[in-house]
Amino acid sequence: MTTYNFCAGPAMLPTEVMAQAQQQLRDFSQPGVSVMELSHRSAEFMQVAEEAEQNLRDLMQIPDNYAVLFMHGGARGQFSAIPLNLLSETGTALYLESGQWSVSAAKEAAKFGRVEVRDIRDANSSIDLAKIGATAGYDYVHYCPNETVDGVSITAVPECDSPLVADMSSCILGRDLDVSKFALIYAGAQKNVGPAGLTLVIVRRDLIGQAAAHTPAILDYRLAQENDSMYNTPPTFAWYLAGEVFKWIKANGGVTAMSARNQAKAAALYRFIDASDFYRNGVSPIFRSEMNVTFQLQDAELNQRFLAQAESHGLMALKGHRLVGGMRASIYNAMPMAGVEALIDFMDNFAQSHQ
Amino acid sequence: MTTYNFCAGPAMLPTEVMAQAQQQLRDFSQPGVSVMELSHRSAEFMQVAEEAEQNLRDLMQIPDNYAVLFMHGGARGQFSAIPLNLLSETGTALYLESGQWSVSAAKEAAKFGRVEVRDIRDANSSIDLAKIGATAGYDYVHYCPNETVDGVSITAVPECDSPLVADMSSCILGRDLDVSKFALIYAGAQKNVGPAGLTLVIVRRDLIGQAAAHTPAILDYRLAQENDSMYNTPPTFAWYLAGEVFKWIKANGGVTAMSARNQAKAAALYRFIDASDFYRNGVSPIFRSEMNVTFQLQDAELNQRFLAQAESHGLMALKGHRLVGGMRASIYNAMPMAGVEALIDFMDNFAQSHQ
Repeated sequence: MTTYNFCAGPAMLPTEVMAQAQQQLRDFSQPGVSVMELSHRSAEFMQVAEEAEQNLRDLMQIPDNYAVLFMHGGARGQFSAIPLNLLSETGTALYLESGQWSVSAAKEAAKFGRVEVRDIRDANSSIDLAKIGATAGYDYVHYCPNETVDGVSITAVPECDSPLVADMSSCILGRDLDVSKFALIYAGAQKNVGPAGLTLVIVRRDLIGQAAAHTPAILDYRLAQENDSMYNTPPTFAWYLAGEVFKWIKANGGVTAMSARNQAKAAALYRFIDASDFYRNGVSPIFRSEMNVTFQLQDAELNQRFLAQAESHGLMALKGHRLVGGMRASIYNAMPMAGVEALIDFMDNFAQSHQ
Repeated sequence: MTTYNFCAGPAMLPTEVMAQAQQQLRDFSQPGVSVMELSHRSAEFMQVAEEAEQNLRDLMQIPDNYAVLFMHGGARGQFSAIPLNLLSETGTALYLESGQWSVSAAKEAAKFGRVEVRDIRDANSSIDLAKIGATAGYDYVHYCPNETVDGVSITAVPECDSPLVADMSSCILGRDLDVSKFALIYAGAQKNVGPAGLTLVIVRRDLIGQAAAHTPAILDYRLAQENDSMYNTPPTFAWYLAGEVFKWIKANGGVTAMSARNQAKAAALYRFIDASDFYRNGVSPIFRSEMNVTFQLQDAELNQRFLAQAESHGLMALKGHRLVGGMRASIYNAMPMAGVEALIDFMDNFAQSHQ
């Protein structure tokens, strides 16, 4: 039985990447030495680091006037780093709230400066883009294009008259993107990139160097840029694995191919849910996440049985976020269509035997 | 040929731990799922997390009134976190400077409050304990018991009349220690604990909860403690590997046995250096590090040849820190006596063929 892991994060990594990581875990550049046992300043690791950055630049077509930083601390570290680096003493940041993560980001930012908040959700925990309103005059505007808890997504990049900052932890590399529309893109690695503990920051270079005096060094973009993300010892193994994931994406058609596959996976699953009267998803179709498909059983009494039987069929970690309950299938780049098909088959059989 | 890796960090991990990690890399609690692909909130990972903490508590005999936190950001993250959490608006912290790392810690702390600095080095980049002076009346006193750059160590815990904070990144678990003498002990994982990206913080609970208002959430001890170090997604794979290292230490006689072995390894190497007129180490014997043995060739012109031949004999990463040059053999817990013997043999042969 093949296991399919639908965890929202830390999420499954591509099978081929894990196979190679296992094969070379103890023998990287020479026998008996793991990549995680190399100095971050060794020639061998520097090559890993540079290749990873170059491959990410290629995949996302990141313009040269953007720095790519490999940082500690997860997306929550960036919740602090972004205002510390980008919010001036006299300025204001606008935070668009579309779910759990953007709300948390706004709350953290308010510790460091003036923050204005706009809730852009509608009554159905979907999105109302008209609520974004005027965006001129802010130091930056922050939003989260994919909210994992509710499975809500804003695919089209909003028009914005201030520097636009996006938390792409759960959607980076899942769709083609025009990086030049953004001032800063950041992503915790543990969904679409690699293991937990690494954070990607793609930031326009002219925005670097204005950090507040009380910015912890590990969150200061200038120090990260000047030291090639090695101001302190970086999480080297996570960096290496992220690099292997980038190679895997390249070898599998790049972001365009990932995007086509992601859209096909999500479409199949939503189509099945919509056609069923046993399962439901309440998000407006255009704001449905391709990465995190949330759904409820009409009879919530069956939730435990659903989860237990799913596990026994090798379908793991389908429980929804504790804040909203129900189910959630996270189907990032690494999830093959076969996993989604196996889930649909199981859901279909479960529905038939419980109706 | 066996490879021995003398890197100062990221350093070698125990061979047995790496063998097991490789074996179970893709099949942890069930086939096809890596420990790094598990939710940090899953029952399987919670068990990993709790076992790791309990084993560390056992190994170091950590009293119940201390919290054990598994954090992001490395020791440099703690350079900021410590003043942010422990330094009051009206208080002063005393930093004892004994080398590169304690100097860096003091410099970072000064961004967040009042810091007094005392250089306790003597003219020979060794230590003069008399220079510590009066320690009463500080919010805390910070020192670094083992400085990796110069290979200098303060083994006996200094008498201190204020809460004592120690950066044990390069010596934690290398010697028995009375934790109750400290207010806080912290350590980046990548030397004696596990891969880079994880940081251990052992802190007296009554000191938690006073963080400054502008403390980034990922550096706030109260949030870490209240959320069992899962306020944000922790670096789960590093946490797991650290737990495996703790089990390995337990299975190999605990810290007492590590300490005996470390002392024997260091004694053999220093004895050889002192008996040689080809190599030298200038640190006063009582302040010599057991973890990082620095040495110079009398003829520095031979440095490159020494390093190249060492590598060809499987003796890796012996180059000294770029700030001081020369050589450095880092011989943490994971380095077996056989590695030190191989190094001594090589050094002996190299000296004989170049004299």
